[in-house]
Amino acid sequence: MKLQLAVDRVSIEKAIEIICEAEQYIDIIEIGTSLIKDFGLESVKRIRQKFPDKVILADIKTVDEAEYEFEAIYRAGADIATVLGAASLETIRICQKVAQKYQKDYMIDLLETSPEKQLELKQFTDGILCVHLPSDKSTGLQALIESTLAQIHDFPRLAVAGGIKPENMAEMKKANFEIAIVGSSITKSASIPESAKLFKSLVGGEE
Amino acid sequence: MKLQLAVDRVSIEKAIEIICEAEQYIDIIEIGTSLIKDFGLESVKRIRQKFPDKVILADIKTVDEAEYEFEAIYRAGADIATVLGAASLETIRICQKVAQKYQKDYMIDLLETSPEKQLELKQFTDGILCVHLPSDKSTGLQALIESTLAQIHDFPRLAVAGGIKPENMAEMKKANFEIAIVGSSITKSASIPESAKLFKSLVGGEE
Repeated sequence: MKLQLAVDRVSIEKAIEIICEAEQYIDIIEIGTSLIKDFGLESVKRIRQKFPDKVILADIKTVDEAEYEFEAIYRAGADIATVLGAASLETIRICQKVAQKYQKDYMIDLLETSPEKQLELKQFTDGILCVHLPSDKSTGLQALIESTLAQIHDFPRLAVAGGIKPENMAEMKKANFEIAIVGSSITKSASIPESAKLFKSLVGGEE
Repeated sequence: MKLQLAVDRVSIEKAIEIICEAEQYIDIIEIGTSLIKDFGLESVKRIRQKFPDKVILADIKTVDEAEYEFEAIYRAGADIATVLGAASLETIRICQKVAQKYQKDYMIDLLETSPEKQLELKQFTDGILCVHLPSDKSTGLQALIESTLAQIHDFPRLAVAGGIKPENMAEMKKANFEIAIVGSSITKSASIPESAKLFKSLVGGEE
């Protein structure tokens, strides 16, 4: 399993500081939605410049204007861009095409998607499906995982985000996620390197 | 009916130029999602500074992290902020609370919402519901309006966006929308002031 560090609600400078502290333990840097909405593409460009060899996911959460947004974010330096599963299938198909054109990855965020929509999203076999408990809901990750995996457990590439703690990492590994996305459990911890190291040991390195 | 001009996919400088040309004919300036994702809150701050007395909607399309995003966007100068109807009810309730705290407006974008969700969204009686045909779908506005109004025709404040042209403005007025949102039909026209003036005459001024 890979460890993705989500960095949110800080300045670009602070984001770079946080990533520097965690860098050796993480597989993917996530530039959180708040960084993009606060600072625009500059956030992606500057973090790409600082970390030229690291995989970067830009959590742009596209829901429309897919060609424009995905072209812009890949050109800014993202390796993986996100689209909402709640978007129209037309929008997600455009994301898929732009990803193929740039030979980049795309992740479909399952935030608030219905079981019916989740089944439809399984057609995007070259994407990554992300089971995502919203930050605005504080509990219920385990139940969300169970109800979502009922539809998509056999999908090739799965990620999980929202409320992941050292205590529930064993459950994530059991469920066969490729990527565990961790935010404030690392970024708001007393020691960022220590907590990143702990999570890295729990994900168990690359598959 | 009010006329809202959506400005998208240009630099902040170009956005200001476009708005200057249309200013006298429009009621609401919309800072499009692409401006926020390209340039961050700076887009809102600079357009607010240039147009201190105009109503500004920031199309931030919040779907999570509602308190953080709505606080930031109102502080940057927006009078109206948008949240996706596809977000969780928890998220939308937070948007409502932040709007009340700042005595600002909020718009719920019905993009890709189910009829069931549209009925649930009628609880947000102090918000504005926006019937929205995605840009990534090129046709079907009239059918979308009909199927959506079947649920929400009696909601106090309604807006409509996506594919509005001079030819279908009569239909929008008949359906009793408070706000008609027009983008490229004005911004990409041969003469921005002429097309803004035409739309203004068709919306018929303030209700």
